[in-house]
Amino acid sequence: MNDAPAITTVPVKLGDRSYDILIGAGLIDRAGAAIASRAGSVRVAIVSDETVAALHLDRLTRSLSGAGIDSTPILVTAGEKSKGFATLEAVTNAILAARLERGDVVIAFGGGVIGDLAGFAAGIARRGMRFIQMPTSLLAQVDSSVGGKTGINTAHGKNLVGVFYQPQLVLADTDVLDTLTPREFRAGYAEVAKYGLIDRSDFFAWLEKNWRGIFDGGPERTEAIAVSCQSKADVVARDEKETGDRALLNLGHTFGHALETATNYDSARLVHGEGVSIGIVLAHQFSTKMNLASQDDAGRVEAHFRQVGLPVSIGDIPGELPSAEKLMDYIAQDKKVARGALTFILTRGIGQAFIAKDVPPSAVLSFLQEKHPT
Amino acid sequence: MNDAPAITTVPVKLGDRSYDILIGAGLIDRAGAAIASRAGSVRVAIVSDETVAALHLDRLTRSLSGAGIDSTPILVTAGEKSKGFATLEAVTNAILAARLERGDVVIAFGGGVIGDLAGFAAGIARRGMRFIQMPTSLLAQVDSSVGGKTGINTAHGKNLVGVFYQPQLVLADTDVLDTLTPREFRAGYAEVAKYGLIDRSDFFAWLEKNWRGIFDGGPERTEAIAVSCQSKADVVARDEKETGDRALLNLGHTFGHALETATNYDSARLVHGEGVSIGIVLAHQFSTKMNLASQDDAGRVEAHFRQVGLPVSIGDIPGELPSAEKLMDYIAQDKKVARGALTFILTRGIGQAFIAKDVPPSAVLSFLQEKHPT
Repeated sequence: MNDAPAITTVPVKLGDRSYDILIGAGLIDRAGAAIASRAGSVRVAIVSDETVAALHLDRLTRSLSGAGIDSTPILVTAGEKSKGFATLEAVTNAILAARLERGDVVIAFGGGVIGDLAGFAAGIARRGMRFIQMPTSLLAQVDSSVGGKTGINTAHGKNLVGVFYQPQLVLADTDVLDTLTPREFRAGYAEVAKYGLIDRSDFFAWLEKNWRGIFDGGPERTEAIAVSCQSKADVVARDEKETGDRALLNLGHTFGHALETATNYDSARLVHGEGVSIGIVLAHQFSTKMNLASQDDAGRVEAHFRQVGLPVSIGDIPGELPSAEKLMDYIAQDKKVARGALTFILTRGIGQAFIAKDVPPSAVLSFLQEKHPT
Repeated sequence: MNDAPAITTVPVKLGDRSYDILIGAGLIDRAGAAIASRAGSVRVAIVSDETVAALHLDRLTRSLSGAGIDSTPILVTAGEKSKGFATLEAVTNAILAARLERGDVVIAFGGGVIGDLAGFAAGIARRGMRFIQMPTSLLAQVDSSVGGKTGINTAHGKNLVGVFYQPQLVLADTDVLDTLTPREFRAGYAEVAKYGLIDRSDFFAWLEKNWRGIFDGGPERTEAIAVSCQSKADVVARDEKETGDRALLNLGHTFGHALETATNYDSARLVHGEGVSIGIVLAHQFSTKMNLASQDDAGRVEAHFRQVGLPVSIGDIPGELPSAEKLMDYIAQDKKVARGALTFILTRGIGQAFIAKDVPPSAVLSFLQEKHPT
């Protein structure tokens, strides 16, 4: 291991539930050793999807068995449709069928869907198993694998059912990102840029200059992932259960979720990160309309997202969409509603996002009608 | 309220998740005031079953609306079969359909099944709503409503899927116990006696003398419920997530769960408390066989349970049962298995239960073959 590539460690500080995020090249091959040194003699269930498994599962299984760890794969169909009660039940039953005990480990090996689904199953099987995240998409590495939110979707909306359940370790292998399609990579990039837009204007400026290195797999990639994880870890440490500041991480997500609902989670039309990209641009434009942010800042965000190839407007989504009024209904049903007043993450400019708790629904509707005339 | 009957309060001390158990007559009629004074202006979903709802729901709804609290009833079929993924999904969706927000309240209004199911749904809907237990069976009042264990059954066994989720308040109305069948009341009594057998031999001796008052609704009833809740609260405060002492509460439950599985949770043949009754007697007899406890103590437990009308042997269960070998399989699949060695709650005598982590499966099997020859 002397010439093994360097690993960046980001600690997540949550008292007796603290854990490390390890970021670097070749981490799949080192997973067995990393898990054995932390968890000792355990058995493992690897929850993954068919796409990720075809590319990387053999390598992970070999790494685990090399460290004396037996593993059982539990595979689900790739895509957002697996984030529902039916698949949750199947995965949970598969963990029980493998006769794993409370001290054994569930690994989420995949993108955001797998992390949310496997984390939820790990949180409820035997009322909580050990849980390790091995995110394989950029989005999962910088966002969903960190912070302990797990969940599934229902007819009532996205992520409305789940538990807060922290992993004991996150292993982010930066090599696997080379197997993503450009579209998937870009979608994850929207969440990277989000951290700059929330409260790190210098990071956003750095991204404007260095984004090509991130996309091309240069050293900027690991740096961008580490800054993103650190940003998220800081927020989660302050407010694990989202009673306050953590809501800032939802910048762009209220609009984004509504658009995902409107496209029925059809990934051919819109994936989560693309919804967030459009949502972030809309949040900046709406902030401008509310006289909170300058037109220049909103334009800068839109220009950067467009430059990297992300969709930036509702019109960029292929196919028919429901009316502005219907989109408004989806927003009202979103979980960030409190007592009839809408809570939105708005901004005073690049890196100056804030939680607005009293946004008039009529203002949102009129903004949507303007952006999405029918 | 000047001549309202006295209420006994038992505090459960769990740091920032501490809560009170209120025990007394007429608490349903006082629920609205009790909830409004603690939770303020909230909306409520009442999860209940058709049997309990027919008897008591109107009174609860009136009490809530008298305090200005709107409520939505969510009714499920009575019985253990409702403790599964399908009903969990239905209840969770009904909470979302009622558009309850995170700060709103889910009330579990029923016996142990309702408490486990509604608590699980409250723990996962919006990643955790406010939760209040209003147990209507003796078993739920003295056991399942206290301590935060929630869960459902799967084909792999009982309560293998769930979350630890503490209520914010428990309201135990002792009047409602008069509407239980004698059989249901007796089943709950097995859990009351269990506390004496774990570590309060004086309480067990008091029960041997005073059980008739408990069954007849005398002042002994409230006292027995309060002692039971206090016993459970003490254990839970020491070990909320069952990494140690809390397992003592499973006295009789390993055998009991196996018998419930063997009867396919058919309440016509065996209800939970009856399984626990037989299980407790078996645990004492097995402890005698292992030369840990005296024959006299085991006989005293069996005699008392028989005296109150509880089943005390496998042969007391009506209908055909699987073989001893099959019962052993169910035990091995139970969650209290660690690394191949069986963990059992055994005893050195009345009030001297302990956690035995190294019970040889062969000894259990031979004991079962003796008690249940085929």
